[in-house]
Amino acid sequence: MQIQNKTTAPIGVFDSGVGGLTVAREIMRQLPSENVVYFGDTARVPYGSKSKNTIIRFSRQIIRFLQTKNVKAIVIACNTASALALDIVQAETDIPVIGVITPGARAAVNETKNAKIGVVGTEATIRSETYTKVIKTYLSNATVIGKPCPLFVPLVEEGFAKHLITEQVIDIYLSEMKNTDIDTMILGCTHYPLLRSKIIEYLGDRVHIVNPAYETAMDLKDILNKQEIANTSDAPGTYEFYVSDAAEKFTRFANSILPYDVASTQYVNIEDY
Amino acid sequence: MQIQNKTTAPIGVFDSGVGGLTVAREIMRQLPSENVVYFGDTARVPYGSKSKNTIIRFSRQIIRFLQTKNVKAIVIACNTASALALDIVQAETDIPVIGVITPGARAAVNETKNAKIGVVGTEATIRSETYTKVIKTYLSNATVIGKPCPLFVPLVEEGFAKHLITEQVIDIYLSEMKNTDIDTMILGCTHYPLLRSKIIEYLGDRVHIVNPAYETAMDLKDILNKQEIANTSDAPGTYEFYVSDAAEKFTRFANSILPYDVASTQYVNIEDY
Repeated sequence: MQIQNKTTAPIGVFDSGVGGLTVAREIMRQLPSENVVYFGDTARVPYGSKSKNTIIRFSRQIIRFLQTKNVKAIVIACNTASALALDIVQAETDIPVIGVITPGARAAVNETKNAKIGVVGTEATIRSETYTKVIKTYLSNATVIGKPCPLFVPLVEEGFAKHLITEQVIDIYLSEMKNTDIDTMILGCTHYPLLRSKIIEYLGDRVHIVNPAYETAMDLKDILNKQEIANTSDAPGTYEFYVSDAAEKFTRFANSILPYDVASTQYVNIEDY
Repeated sequence: MQIQNKTTAPIGVFDSGVGGLTVAREIMRQLPSENVVYFGDTARVPYGSKSKNTIIRFSRQIIRFLQTKNVKAIVIACNTASALALDIVQAETDIPVIGVITPGARAAVNETKNAKIGVVGTEATIRSETYTKVIKTYLSNATVIGKPCPLFVPLVEEGFAKHLITEQVIDIYLSEMKNTDIDTMILGCTHYPLLRSKIIEYLGDRVHIVNPAYETAMDLKDILNKQEIANTSDAPGTYEFYVSDAAEKFTRFANSILPYDVASTQYVNIEDY
């Protein structure tokens, strides 16, 4: 009876803001029967410049909130929170919690031919060296070159993704990386896939670009199957969206990137959790 | 006896992060005997893209924290919080609370010859039209042209203030403003004075640039004198710094812009207030 209930329980997905919708979209695509509860911490976004202790505290609050929705598993769609908080919150939580770093690292390891991998992400993600550590557990002789690109998020959020300015910022951040012989690069921040075409244009075909969202949804599928908690219904999943600020703005953004109508987003005072 | 205590009580100054230190610096310069308690909300920075309700909630928490330090007056050094929350928190607080908007607006009104004033600031500050409303109470026939410049803060924070990229972003944001006949422009965000020389270079000499920090400290001085709570001691004031995240990083930044040694900054979990 308990297992029966668990299969229909939703997946909790959270991010510092809207970026994690790219991960949620991939989960919805690969696991269309699963119900999803998404939380975006829009009152405290961005996470990328903040400390480990603060990101752990924020992640704990969000997990407590998601558990009030009886989620059966949690996906940390934010690279910064995955890099800084996953180990800690995983040990404290009695349901599966997965992040985007391990799937992204594994995808890069599968892709690289010369064991030379680049990683771009926020200041906090790159400084933590979590991608490097995880890549080396799969491929101990790997060379990993990390580069924080803090202006990428504001450029995307201000609608400059296709702008000439963004090409120049890409050149500033990635010119050193371009002069290495990496053959694979991980987009270690959920906003960066929106700069994918400009980054490919800049680095050229010889560098394979990895977006961890795809592999994260695959990992989630495996875990649900192994734990026998996958939703086996034929009906399409239902989706709920919560944010800590500016619900209407979030709804508009969600509608621009998800292939469904998001009717509404609900406000949560996350500091109460 | 109570007045005696009040005169030595500190001034509370708060901002979303480090930008308000430019206002604190001006207070320390103009009122050297006053003690100051500074709070920077580095866990939830930036404020400029967030909603009015959230900024009011954050401001209330910070004021409750500052009142535990027995402050005799509060300066909201953040333009966004001044624009969205000042009226509300002023009505709730039994000590003087001043923001940076009224002093900045008054300085611009005193400066303009043709009653045409430009204002640059965050999305939230410009959208609120608070500068426009306050300017018009002083100068009812004023024309006020507002322009949100959301990339200015990340450019300054990433150390790009002197970079060619910043000149291009200034051109993107201010080219329309340059084609008007404004003779005065308010830097309506505490980060923007760090772009002052580039903005002057771009707009030319005919536009007078107003930084509200100077007038804010003057207003504070007036209020302390009128209420007879100014510190009349000859000893220099003492300063305390508190943040909601990353205290060491804040200390380094504070030391780069204040003309004293900031020995340490203390962490506060602001959500507890």
